[in-house]
Amino acid sequence: MANPTAAMLVIGDEILSGRTQDSNSHHLAGELTARGINLREVRVVSDDRAAIVAAARALSAAYDHVFTSGGIGPTHDDITADCIAEALGASIDVREDARALLVAHYAQQGTELNEARLRMARVPDGATLIDNPISAAPGFTLGNVHVMAGVPAIFKAMVASVLPTITGGAPIVSRTLRLTRAEGEIAGPLGELAQAHSDLSFGSYPFIQDGVLGSNIVVRGGNAAAVEAAIAALAALFPDNGA
Amino acid sequence: MANPTAAMLVIGDEILSGRTQDSNSHHLAGELTARGINLREVRVVSDDRAAIVAAARALSAAYDHVFTSGGIGPTHDDITADCIAEALGASIDVREDARALLVAHYAQQGTELNEARLRMARVPDGATLIDNPISAAPGFTLGNVHVMAGVPAIFKAMVASVLPTITGGAPIVSRTLRLTRAEGEIAGPLGELAQAHSDLSFGSYPFIQDGVLGSNIVVRGGNAAAVEAAIAALAALFPDNGA
Repeated sequence: MANPTAAMLVIGDEILSGRTQDSNSHHLAGELTARGINLREVRVVSDDRAAIVAAARALSAAYDHVFTSGGIGPTHDDITADCIAEALGASIDVREDARALLVAHYAQQGTELNEARLRMARVPDGATLIDNPISAAPGFTLGNVHVMAGVPAIFKAMVASVLPTITGGAPIVSRTLRLTRAEGEIAGPLGELAQAHSDLSFGSYPFIQDGVLGSNIVVRGGNAAAVEAAIAALAALFPDNGA
Repeated sequence: MANPTAAMLVIGDEILSGRTQDSNSHHLAGELTARGINLREVRVVSDDRAAIVAAARALSAAYDHVFTSGGIGPTHDDITADCIAEALGASIDVREDARALLVAHYAQQGTELNEARLRMARVPDGATLIDNPISAAPGFTLGNVHVMAGVPAIFKAMVASVLPTITGGAPIVSRTLRLTRAEGEIAGPLGELAQAHSDLSFGSYPFIQDGVLGSNIVVRGGNAAAVEAAIAALAALFPDNGA
């Protein structure tokens, strides 16, 4: 069975202006890979209704799962929930189950649940809530789209909440061979090996360390024995590798 | 005059598998913002011909400029140059000006210019070369697409080479006000201020520091005086801000 596919949609002007570096997609990439879910695309779009709706629609249609981060807070620029509802044709309003979570949280804190904060209880009809153990305001899953917060600590907590609800695939095994050879030295034999093992993926990533040109060769595939055999064959091709 | 728009296309399985964290788009975002070029979208796709061609076509049609990183080395998984040529309908082969750069570089190093390395001289017809002061193999500009290496040091050098050839826009001024108030406290007045200044963009970014909930408010716009006035108005709304 083929591994499930996924895309990530990062929403936020602060990423595109260079103010903030997105770390959420890197975190999600590692978590999905560990579960045999194949992350195929990441998109970053601005806090713009048309851009969010179009990207959510395209990614939801193209992949098994879409994970979003950002734009679900209480301020005027937090429009993700409404955009996802629009993209998937759902209606949206303050929902009682989400409101109850906020009422309990702010009562415990002795803080007012004002109109702005109540916006965080806007959840599309038919969506399932995603638990937020840090600040209560929930994410949600609507169709195949999982909507989560942008603050990295909350994003990670929501990913941990939602991933157990998703069926993964066979684990993808990944092994790296570090060669102290420039990519241009090894590209010929590496390409032949990759052609001979078309069931595996071979990536080559150059590095420069202490003035030495080298290449990390990453072999990935669903069959652990085949991956190990390919790494052994690669090592045999470059026996004098001094790494 | 409206600011030019741009998109970034990051190519590489290593980003999507979580092995490597992309830093190139963050670097580009800052450089473009400083030049008044409006980065509107980032996409990360895998080393897959169909995915690269489709993304390059879509982004090239939608924005004034597209910047790519990754996939222009000597190994079998480096297919970006051919994909960009296909996306824009250009023919591609080893080009003499690019070959000459490699011949000179490898002669100086006393290293063989083998068949694999010669692949890095594949440049589409009609493209302009982008200088690579680190390892010689050039990037190129074809139409509105600027094709650059993925290794961060080389990417940065190529960005520095290509940006002076691009016409920027009026600088976008950005000011941040740090408030030690939770977003939910300030969202109402902030939203009203944003509505009253529709020529400016107001972003709100929550933070947690030493147990204190706060919000960084970022005001951006082309008119520096208007940005300063909005920041002053915002500070007056929250006079007891202890930040």
